[in-house]
Amino acid sequence: MPSNPLPTDFIQRIHLAEERLRAVVNATPLLEFASLNQRVGGRVLLKPENLQRAGSFKIRGAYNAIAALPAANRQRGVIAWSSGNHAQGVALAAALFEVPATIVMPSDAPRVKREAVVALGAEIVAYDRYSEDREAIAKALARERQCPLIPSYDHWDVIAGQGSIGLEIMRDPALQGRAPDQVFVCCGGGGLAAGIATAVHESAPKVSVFAVEPDVADDTRRSLKAGKRLSNPAATASICDALLTPTPGRLTFPVNQRELSGVLTVSDEAALRAVGYAADELRLIVEHCGAVTLAAALGNTDLCANKTTVVTLSGGNIDSALLAKAITAQRGESSGRSD
Amino acid sequence: MPSNPLPTDFIQRIHLAEERLRAVVNATPLLEFASLNQRVGGRVLLKPENLQRAGSFKIRGAYNAIAALPAANRQRGVIAWSSGNHAQGVALAAALFEVPATIVMPSDAPRVKREAVVALGAEIVAYDRYSEDREAIAKALARERQCPLIPSYDHWDVIAGQGSIGLEIMRDPALQGRAPDQVFVCCGGGGLAAGIATAVHESAPKVSVFAVEPDVADDTRRSLKAGKRLSNPAATASICDALLTPTPGRLTFPVNQRELSGVLTVSDEAALRAVGYAADELRLIVEHCGAVTLAAALGNTDLCANKTTVVTLSGGNIDSALLAKAITAQRGESSGRSD
Repeated sequence: MPSNPLPTDFIQRIHLAEERLRAVVNATPLLEFASLNQRVGGRVLLKPENLQRAGSFKIRGAYNAIAALPAANRQRGVIAWSSGNHAQGVALAAALFEVPATIVMPSDAPRVKREAVVALGAEIVAYDRYSEDREAIAKALARERQCPLIPSYDHWDVIAGQGSIGLEIMRDPALQGRAPDQVFVCCGGGGLAAGIATAVHESAPKVSVFAVEPDVADDTRRSLKAGKRLSNPAATASICDALLTPTPGRLTFPVNQRELSGVLTVSDEAALRAVGYAADELRLIVEHCGAVTLAAALGNTDLCANKTTVVTLSGGNIDSALLAKAITAQRGESSGRSD
Repeated sequence: MPSNPLPTDFIQRIHLAEERLRAVVNATPLLEFASLNQRVGGRVLLKPENLQRAGSFKIRGAYNAIAALPAANRQRGVIAWSSGNHAQGVALAAALFEVPATIVMPSDAPRVKREAVVALGAEIVAYDRYSEDREAIAKALARERQCPLIPSYDHWDVIAGQGSIGLEIMRDPALQGRAPDQVFVCCGGGGLAAGIATAVHESAPKVSVFAVEPDVADDTRRSLKAGKRLSNPAATASICDALLTPTPGRLTFPVNQRELSGVLTVSDEAALRAVGYAADELRLIVEHCGAVTLAAALGNTDLCANKTTVVTLSGGNIDSALLAKAITAQRGESSGRSD
């Protein structure tokens, strides 16, 4: 396997991604809420990728990676494995290029997720998550069909696509040309964090970028401390399932080693509370994995006080029963809306 | 009672309102969704006042009206009657000025609404909605306490405050300096429509502004046709309760006669579907009254095709059970998300 070092033109690839994506993605302007500022004691600007096409930032990396393929390769179609947002992102991106997409998904994936992928025109190859290896299945399919694989984070064009968010943040009128003090980004494999941090630091090298992980899946936190890639225990469970990658990415980790100021961790309970807060107080539907950053801001007011913090909300694909549970818990907790 | 003709400096009062509100309200940038554009066949830009402080546009008119009071009058506190968003808007505005607020509310108003008003520090005077006249109670209180009343729409400073939305729309970067073809605004008493239409027409007199009403409470539609203010039947019921004003406003009607291009009407079922669409497809929580404009866009694709339509979402204060019902209905209808 090639070592795939950081391309010397990586920041240019992020700019190219942003250009490619401009006419494709939903513009997600920074949102500011007086009630959230008051609660945190500082200025909080939300980057709402829950409002993005197919409900998360994943369309960015997927579209950019497909755009970067030689046309002849692209025409044969693309393959990905994912049970979540990356599946929808790849399916939508392939549909926009009018090329076939095959998604390797667990046979017990929620109906709503399978249907969303099928509605976007992709083919699903099901596997048994207890006895089969999805990565091996996807790679065998890719060899057999001579189709390129679109990985969910360990791919420079995928990371560059997610990085377009960082360029958008820095240009947003809400910042009035002044860099924020810090940016919070959720972290599974680390592609979103690596892309955003690189993009933000191009124009504002002093901005602190913090990754946010579930406390039970803090592989990036421990890996940064150890200076090498460490794994999560195999049996790790969290409602933030999309952030349960086994280990930091091979490509993303060295970037995050250089770019991140630190890692904040969040409990499942805090993530659930943040989903309820976002829905009931801000009227935004955010999924658990997307709300860990908001939970980190709400839970670290010492770190956010008197600062400007950009909080990236990564997605909004949440089961309606879980959403209702989060809203009910929020309403039980607060006696009416405060603002 | 004075006739209260349109002030000659009314547009200046809208600009003054916008200045007063700039540091007070949440900035609500226009939002665009590729999936909504595709569905409607034109460009749709949402003005999301569901993300506004206290959950609706009402803070604008309330704050501006209180700001316009002579300081000595203001100190004694303000009085309003409302069971809904205006109650929260006045309570929050009074709290920001650190003056007392008294809200006349029905004794059977939902607990969550009463608690929200109390949490904002206002006093509630309860009345029996079947045997008592809330307007008479509020006016008697105002005389007794020598406190100014803040009406929900028939007041020039309230209308000017809501009009600030029109100025913000026209300046939003998403329009890139080009006026939209049309603007949809929900209509109860007509204050929001009168304010926005006046503000939009200052810089772009050719923009069509359409009011949107529940089909069972189409008093403004019928009144514009008849050239005089007509009433809704006394027993009118709709889930869009905040739009069930008995008749167009005395001040707002002549303005709307001059400014509106027409009125669109929406069924309760279509409003409920729009709430579900907004939550499930756009990840925005919008209340029924706030979603009638979105319902009008979804239901009038002939009118919206190949045009740029600004759709004002007026508020997001919705009961969580109703929200869950709307999402469930939406998911039953669509086979997975399409985009």
